[in-house]
Amino acid sequence: MKKVAILMGSDSDLPIIKKATDMLSSFGIPFEVHVYSAHRMPGYVREFVSSARENGFGVIIAAAGMAAHLAGVCASYTTLPVIGIPCKSAALEGIDALLATVQMPSGIPVATVAIDGGTNAAILAAQMLAIEDAELAKKLADKRAADAEKIIEKDRDIMARL
Amino acid sequence: MKKVAILMGSDSDLPIIKKATDMLSSFGIPFEVHVYSAHRMPGYVREFVSSARENGFGVIIAAAGMAAHLAGVCASYTTLPVIGIPCKSAALEGIDALLATVQMPSGIPVATVAIDGGTNAAILAAQMLAIEDAELAKKLADKRAADAEKIIEKDRDIMARL
Amino acid sequence: MKKVAILMGSDSDLPIIKKATDMLSSFGIPFEVHVYSAHRMPGYVREFVSSARENGFGVIIAAAGMAAHLAGVCASYTTLPVIGIPCKSAALEGIDALLATVQMPSGIPVATVAIDGGTNAAILAAQMLAIEDAELAKKLADKRAADAEKIIEKDRDIMARL
Amino acid sequence: MKKVAILMGSDSDLPIIKKATDMLSSFGIPFEVHVYSAHRMPGYVREFVSSARENGFGVIIAAAGMAAHLAGVCASYTTLPVIGIPCKSAALEGIDALLATVQMPSGIPVATVAIDGGTNAAILAAQMLAIEDAELAKKLADKRAADAEKIIEKDRDIMARL
Amino acid sequence: MKKVAILMGSDSDLPIIKKATDMLSSFGIPFEVHVYSAHRMPGYVREFVSSARENGFGVIIAAAGMAAHLAGVCASYTTLPVIGIPCKSAALEGIDALLATVQMPSGIPVATVAIDGGTNAAILAAQMLAIEDAELAKKLADKRAADAEKIIEKDRDIMARL
Amino acid sequence: MKKVAILMGSDSDLPIIKKATDMLSSFGIPFEVHVYSAHRMPGYVREFVSSARENGFGVIIAAAGMAAHLAGVCASYTTLPVIGIPCKSAALEGIDALLATVQMPSGIPVATVAIDGGTNAAILAAQMLAIEDAELAKKLADKRAADAEKIIEKDRDIMARL
Amino acid sequence: MKKVAILMGSDSDLPIIKKATDMLSSFGIPFEVHVYSAHRMPGYVREFVSSARENGFGVIIAAAGMAAHLAGVCASYTTLPVIGIPCKSAALEGIDALLATVQMPSGIPVATVAIDGGTNAAILAAQMLAIEDAELAKKLADKRAADAEKIIEKDRDIMARL
Amino acid sequence: MKKVAILMGSDSDLPIIKKATDMLSSFGIPFEVHVYSAHRMPGYVREFVSSARENGFGVIIAAAGMAAHLAGVCASYTTLPVIGIPCKSAALEGIDALLATVQMPSGIPVATVAIDGGTNAAILAAQMLAIEDAELAKKLADKRAADAEKIIEKDRDIMARL
Repeated sequence: MKKVAILMGSDSDLPIIKKATDMLSSFGIPFEVHVYSAHRMPGYVREFVSSARENGFGVIIAAAGMAAHLAGVCASYTTLPVIGIPCKSAALEGIDALLATVQMPSGIPVATVAIDGGTNAAILAAQMLAIEDAELAKKLADKRAADAEKIIEKDRDIMARL
Repeated sequence: MKKVAILMGSDSDLPIIKKATDMLSSFGIPFEVHVYSAHRMPGYVREFVSSARENGFGVIIAAAGMAAHLAGVCASYTTLPVIGIPCKSAALEGIDALLATVQMPSGIPVATVAIDGGTNAAILAAQMLAIEDAELAKKLADKRAADAEKIIEKDRDIMARL
Repeated sequence: MKKVAILMGSDSDLPIIKKATDMLSSFGIPFEVHVYSAHRMPGYVREFVSSARENGFGVIIAAAGMAAHLAGVCASYTTLPVIGIPCKSAALEGIDALLATVQMPSGIPVATVAIDGGTNAAILAAQMLAIEDAELAKKLADKRAADAEKIIEKDRDIMARL
Repeated sequence: MKKVAILMGSDSDLPIIKKATDMLSSFGIPFEVHVYSAHRMPGYVREFVSSARENGFGVIIAAAGMAAHLAGVCASYTTLPVIGIPCKSAALEGIDALLATVQMPSGIPVATVAIDGGTNAAILAAQMLAIEDAELAKKLADKRAADAEKIIEKDRDIMARL
Repeated sequence: MKKVAILMGSDSDLPIIKKATDMLSSFGIPFEVHVYSAHRMPGYVREFVSSARENGFGVIIAAAGMAAHLAGVCASYTTLPVIGIPCKSAALEGIDALLATVQMPSGIPVATVAIDGGTNAAILAAQMLAIEDAELAKKLADKRAADAEKIIEKDRDIMARL
Repeated sequence: MKKVAILMGSDSDLPIIKKATDMLSSFGIPFEVHVYSAHRMPGYVREFVSSARENGFGVIIAAAGMAAHLAGVCASYTTLPVIGIPCKSAALEGIDALLATVQMPSGIPVATVAIDGGTNAAILAAQMLAIEDAELAKKLADKRAADAEKIIEKDRDIMARL
Repeated sequence: MKKVAILMGSDSDLPIIKKATDMLSSFGIPFEVHVYSAHRMPGYVREFVSSARENGFGVIIAAAGMAAHLAGVCASYTTLPVIGIPCKSAALEGIDALLATVQMPSGIPVATVAIDGGTNAAILAAQMLAIEDAELAKKLADKRAADAEKIIEKDRDIMARL
Repeated sequence: MKKVAILMGSDSDLPIIKKATDMLSSFGIPFEVHVYSAHRMPGYVREFVSSARENGFGVIIAAAGMAAHLAGVCASYTTLPVIGIPCKSAALEGIDALLATVQMPSGIPVATVAIDGGTNAAILAAQMLAIEDAELAKKLADKRAADAEKIIEKDRDIMARL
């Protein structure tokens, strides 16, 4: 199975990444995590991402805040799908990272998820890998059903909580 | 090869979709296009999307404006990856569609591209399909190189245009 | 008397819903509350809302955060009036939920109230039911007068608090 | 049948109101339209709205731009449901009118529709009146079906337009 | 000397008003404070503001949050200058109140100060009253000089605090 | 009678200023207009504003776009009331000028009117001058009544225009 | 004299760049212009910028729109000062480019000028080069004086234009 | 070596300035810090900045919040490069200060860094001074390498922290 690479611009984003790796683990998807700043160590990002496909990666997830360039920089070095997680930082409620991640120019898309959306980034990566993988697709459907079941349980006793 | 389904909330979004289908055609990726409103014909969306995987689709692209629910509604009916194109409409410069598309709750991601980003939605779909398809991956790399070449040509005579 | 249905996308919105049910109770309006996610259990939402009118409901209130599709999805399944409460979540101060709730396309309105506006959603539902119900209209007028009286009392001693 | 009152802050909003009155006419709902500025003629607004219920009105629609106070001022003089249409004006893309209409304080709701949403304001008014009116409810359902049919027709030949 | 009237939409804005009354007191300007909600007690606002000029008031200050209509409603009942203080509330960082206060339609201005700007509202009121009052103008100039002196003192030892 | 000084940051703002001077003329208020850039000719602004009170001015109006500092700079050189008109320019719909004008620090207020609100700036200036001038106050009340009358006329034939 | 390098992400930004090169020419500052996309030809950007200092450049100007990464990417390859020009594109009024340019993480600053601010980027570059160049500093001062003179001339006949 | 002047509008911005002075100290760049309010003591700002070049300063850094005029006012008094730090204050998440700092009119640029970006302001100042100073340029490159090294260390054990 193809691996998922997860890059974060700073280790302050670790709690968001943890949600992603937990989700990938639950699906049995192999992954590799790096703290690689797009701006402070561009060479590492270039080298890692440029060879990601040949090194067995199928999807790249990049999380960054503020003028969040990491996902876009990754996307410039590969034709693998790149998922961007805009991270909320000290000001502006994350709108800076969202716009810097999603508003990519024609030719170089970044698949952007919600602000701080670590879980969804991992699910989206799994969905991509599951296009040709019926077993993984079944795991995704099972998780979806389990999620629904949890809410249904909450629904059962909601009147009692009012 | 898996097909790409493209849904648009209104045929006023056709110019954006046209960019997507042109790009898919250039990659030789089969596709099917529908005008399906998430709110005015929810049954059609549900039926189409629920059976999309078994009908040979690998990726779904959904384009909508304003309170753009179409991509999210698609995502609620399938575990295929769903790409959302937020469309700019008469007010608010597209920020309404962007937030309504990207800020999905945990469990149901939408891979969001830039406002009116029809071309990038198609490229992203191709990238997803190319994870396990070396030939398509090569086409993506070739297009990337061709794009760069076009800019390099523009760069050659830019001083003369100033 | 017609009942009010209240759906919330997640039980994290319970405090907001509690304000709504307290208000409905004070008016003697019967209601039913459900935790129904538009995206994680679309079948439940469809089934409940599609049959809401015939099951004696007169108004539907839907509360959700982020890319808040719940109210819009409800509106797509019924011609009963749907009141949307945009809920503030972890980022963006609730503007995402507001735009995703209010900017509905032509044909499918959602009556949107303020961010986290549980109380006002209930009052608006009561106002709708009171169009043809003089007794309920009187209760609304009485509450309005009581609200004014409370502020008048505060006004009386405000100089002393400065 | 209860009438719908439509107030606009300025006759520059007439095209938006025209959409609302056309829709009300198609449902056979009687209505009355006024150009009443909340700020330039507060006495007229107060007098009209205060006696609206006893004069046979069931719903009030108010359209205004910029610091759009009209809907809120109406709501302060009646317990009838008030629908607010925020109108886009020369600057800020309508976000000023949207926030000034929807962010009402606790106790005085305004049922806000999309920016420039004249059609939806009328449909929402009809939905409120249809809570206790099966015939009008059927007209709403018929319109919903007709809207869907129009899109289905567009869907039929969409591939030919690409 | 003309009096300043201060209206607040809710006594939750008291800390902001306190800054205003402290400033007015320091200038020896007489004032009167009321908790008057534009929406919950419109009659009180109308009555008070309509007769404010004849009752010896020269300036009206109005503080409100969310869809802050209070200043605009005051302005509709008088030709005295009305100063609006937009108050930050639970969501949206005060931008709703700012736009609802400042974006007044042609003919009915509100002199808007910064979000939560109680002190500046009082200074602005004093500046208005000082147009024809040399003694008050001198007090304003003295306060300006004292403010500068305070900063100059901070400047003196700033290097030591680094 | 005290004069009104009107400063504009650039003569591109002339149409907005023209509305202000027309209004002042209609009230018979004397005025003086200058094109003075806060940044390109700070000495002129300082000199003019510092001596404005002793030169017979009662109010200063300042119009500027983008990072609109002109009103704030004026306010720093005088204790006369300064009215700021934020002007919409090529980008950002005027929100830059609005925030740069209204969000003044404690001690130095700017009485901010709506974006491009030339008419309202002049009316506000007249209101300030009318605090102690019963004749001017009457002119303001007359204009208010005339404005209302114009709308009332529009209201008379509005049903015919639908 | 050190040269200025100007990179633009797309030749659609040429009119903005033209303003910058005209200004540099007027100061006699040598420059070189390139159309280099940060995402479509990252290798060219890296190579050019990495060797910019040794090739005689003193300042780099980068202009880009949308998720404007170009300036940030340049900054990651050099310790020369990088000036970023956020360019307004088809949606969002340029706020996306502004945030993506200015909100750089600690360690890698971009000196950001106004949206579409080509002229100011060039002046800022000149100011940097003039820190140690008295002749260039004099040219800057002369231009400043000439700018002021132009406005003073406009000021002279402004009353006649009203 | 040329000195760096740092002005802050209020001593509440001291923590941000501390980051800047620490960074300057680490580069061995001499600096001088002042608490100078653009609005409350314009004469001090004018005097200091007007003579800054002749007093041996090479760069000016100005930090201010809200309608942050300080950097722009500095820029109006000198042709030295002025770096603006927009500071986040009690409301609006710093977007007011950002726009008031960066959106400068043509002719008077301010080199704007991220909200609360004290460290980057100092690095940018160092980069400007290093254009003609190879030793300082080397220090900047060394710091860049050290920053990268710190992240590389974090990267080494990141898998263990998940």
